[in-house]
Amino acid sequence: MAVNLTIPPDSAIHPVAGIRIGVTEAGIRKANRRDLTVFQLDEGTTVAGVFTRNRFCAAPVLVCKSHLESGEPIRALVINTGNANAGTGEPGMAAALQTCDATAALLSLDPRQILPFSTGVILEPLPVDKLCAALPDALAAAGNNEWMNAAHGIMTTDTLPKIVSRQLDIQGQRITITGISKGAGMIRPNMATMLSFLATDAGIDQALLNHLAGRLADASFNRITVDGDTSTNDSFIVMASGQAGLQVQSEQDPAFQPLFDALQQAALELAQLIVRDAEGATKFITIRVEEAGSQDEALRVAYAVAHSPLVKTAFYASDPNLGRILAAVGYAGIEDLDVQGVNLWLDDVRVATRGQRNPDYQEADGQRVMQQAEIAVRIALGRGAVSETVYTCDFSHEYVSINADYRS
Amino acid sequence: MAVNLTIPPDSAIHPVAGIRIGVTEAGIRKANRRDLTVFQLDEGTTVAGVFTRNRFCAAPVLVCKSHLESGEPIRALVINTGNANAGTGEPGMAAALQTCDATAALLSLDPRQILPFSTGVILEPLPVDKLCAALPDALAAAGNNEWMNAAHGIMTTDTLPKIVSRQLDIQGQRITITGISKGAGMIRPNMATMLSFLATDAGIDQALLNHLAGRLADASFNRITVDGDTSTNDSFIVMASGQAGLQVQSEQDPAFQPLFDALQQAALELAQLIVRDAEGATKFITIRVEEAGSQDEALRVAYAVAHSPLVKTAFYASDPNLGRILAAVGYAGIEDLDVQGVNLWLDDVRVATRGQRNPDYQEADGQRVMQQAEIAVRIALGRGAVSETVYTCDFSHEYVSINADYRS
Repeated sequence: MAVNLTIPPDSAIHPVAGIRIGVTEAGIRKANRRDLTVFQLDEGTTVAGVFTRNRFCAAPVLVCKSHLESGEPIRALVINTGNANAGTGEPGMAAALQTCDATAALLSLDPRQILPFSTGVILEPLPVDKLCAALPDALAAAGNNEWMNAAHGIMTTDTLPKIVSRQLDIQGQRITITGISKGAGMIRPNMATMLSFLATDAGIDQALLNHLAGRLADASFNRITVDGDTSTNDSFIVMASGQAGLQVQSEQDPAFQPLFDALQQAALELAQLIVRDAEGATKFITIRVEEAGSQDEALRVAYAVAHSPLVKTAFYASDPNLGRILAAVGYAGIEDLDVQGVNLWLDDVRVATRGQRNPDYQEADGQRVMQQAEIAVRIALGRGAVSETVYTCDFSHEYVSINADYRS
Repeated sequence: MAVNLTIPPDSAIHPVAGIRIGVTEAGIRKANRRDLTVFQLDEGTTVAGVFTRNRFCAAPVLVCKSHLESGEPIRALVINTGNANAGTGEPGMAAALQTCDATAALLSLDPRQILPFSTGVILEPLPVDKLCAALPDALAAAGNNEWMNAAHGIMTTDTLPKIVSRQLDIQGQRITITGISKGAGMIRPNMATMLSFLATDAGIDQALLNHLAGRLADASFNRITVDGDTSTNDSFIVMASGQAGLQVQSEQDPAFQPLFDALQQAALELAQLIVRDAEGATKFITIRVEEAGSQDEALRVAYAVAHSPLVKTAFYASDPNLGRILAAVGYAGIEDLDVQGVNLWLDDVRVATRGQRNPDYQEADGQRVMQQAEIAVRIALGRGAVSETVYTCDFSHEYVSINADYRS
């Protein structure tokens, strides 16, 4: 059950000139499932990526990094669901490279111009022959307006496709931004069992795009958490085809800020869609920490609250058992925290004042907010001026069911 | 449903000379519930404690620390369940002190000779008048052999009482060690929503006991985790009445090592009992990390695995989805981890070799181990010679139910 997850109508999904997508059935894990997606990028498209920091990162992540570093222009992305090709050692690397070789041969490109992505179960061999056998079908299916099929084609335990699309005018040019994401469990910053592909027809200089990708991820995918589990395969890719005519070279360019803001908003929405469709989620929770002494301590507190199973089950139950939030603040690792400086709100309801229950707080007010599908927790630490916001969800019976039965 | 939690028969519970316990109904939260326990300690008993590091520590924890530091000989412990007296600010401090005042008045002691303990819901005022009104009953009920009643009297969401008792001979003296513990959720090192009271009739010098208490906790209560939530109220108290005649002054004393080993074993069993009765637990999991470069990295890896909701739900489902364990090892924060050095076993089954699936591994073997009620995970990092062991449980539907409904 997703929380207020809106799927845009086809008419609101704008193709991105210079980018064609094909989706097909490769039979990676299940039959009759479109599980292979190929992006083809026109010449001139710049591409940058941000990847998981998990030391057990998957073979395709290693190959992506190597191919991006090679400097060869990226011309295709190949994405399979059903198998993560992680914990698979040398045969896994060989499979990821074979995927690139086969795609390159079909498109008359260098294998380093291909980026491979995999998502699904870990520690099982990727059926690379099935994947490669289906590549011609995926290429033949290529079209401009296949974004919704791609959003479906990269899903694992997602219940709904995740897609964001918008257009805006910058310096008289109509610019399109469209992206998809997937991921529902093993989600936490740096990053998630998540894939996201964000494209624009604006042109962005390669060096600038490399820098931008990190900034976009930090304010979006690196601010969401479902279960605190950092996946082996997380990848966020930004593509700029340049076919709209606008070309941005540097942050000083007047077109930079409006384009960045729009990409940032799209990335944040794609990240939030993952939380909205998180495994078993029934509530969408925004945790904002204010008056922190540093970004590090703001994030420590936000994640301590966001990861606490006791807090998350209280949200699930709509139970304003808010001492659990204070307890999480208390164990977040700020050794010199003065609890008398801590204030806590649930939406507009002030729950705790100076580290203790607000004398005016009425349980009925807390109960009212807890019953909402979207809840904002605001924690002021009284230590400084730094704020950070993290997005998460509640912890339900359904989460346990999904993760206990995932492979069956 | 507790996992292999053994309750000793009354005949196996040995009273500790010099320590009398009384349990009564104070009506703290629920009627007809024995929720108030008072320990009375004979003159000459030494007492030491280890307490939560949560910054939002409860009022009674602050009072306990202050009273222990005062140097006044501790003569009584007053323990209520139903309310944690945490997040209660100045009124909470006043309530904890009032508890000590009332007990001291009844026993003709200084209030600093009393240690108060509370466990239950956070952020609600302690009904201290009800508590004090029931103190005479608790004192009147005092007896030598009330340990089992006390084990019941300190429970919250525990399904079973937790008690350990043993006798051993040291230097021709028969020594008794008996202890109780409680706690089932909000459990992680440093420490847990847990209370534990461990007593011996051996005599232990006060300075030595202060040092011992920390060592005992580090190898027991600081090695268990249920949900990663560090409580506001955790307290572990060791009492040595000296009435058996044996007196230990220092670690050089020949009686020290056998006494320490027996106390250590009792503390570890009391800690493990908490995991066996953890909220919703169906499996008891031992996670041993070997070949670590330091204690810190051994514990990081062990807790990353122990806290992963994905790993814990896989245990619940008896699903050998063991890539989730490797993923947790990968995000545990060892930046220079060479995954090719990592080996993984489930009991005697070698699952991963050099960072990837062991070629000889059969899923049926993993399945067989996963179906057991007690499972040992062993992870070798290939980095050094340090080992650490952490105890945890699986993550079930029942955990969610218990924590979603706790206050209702």
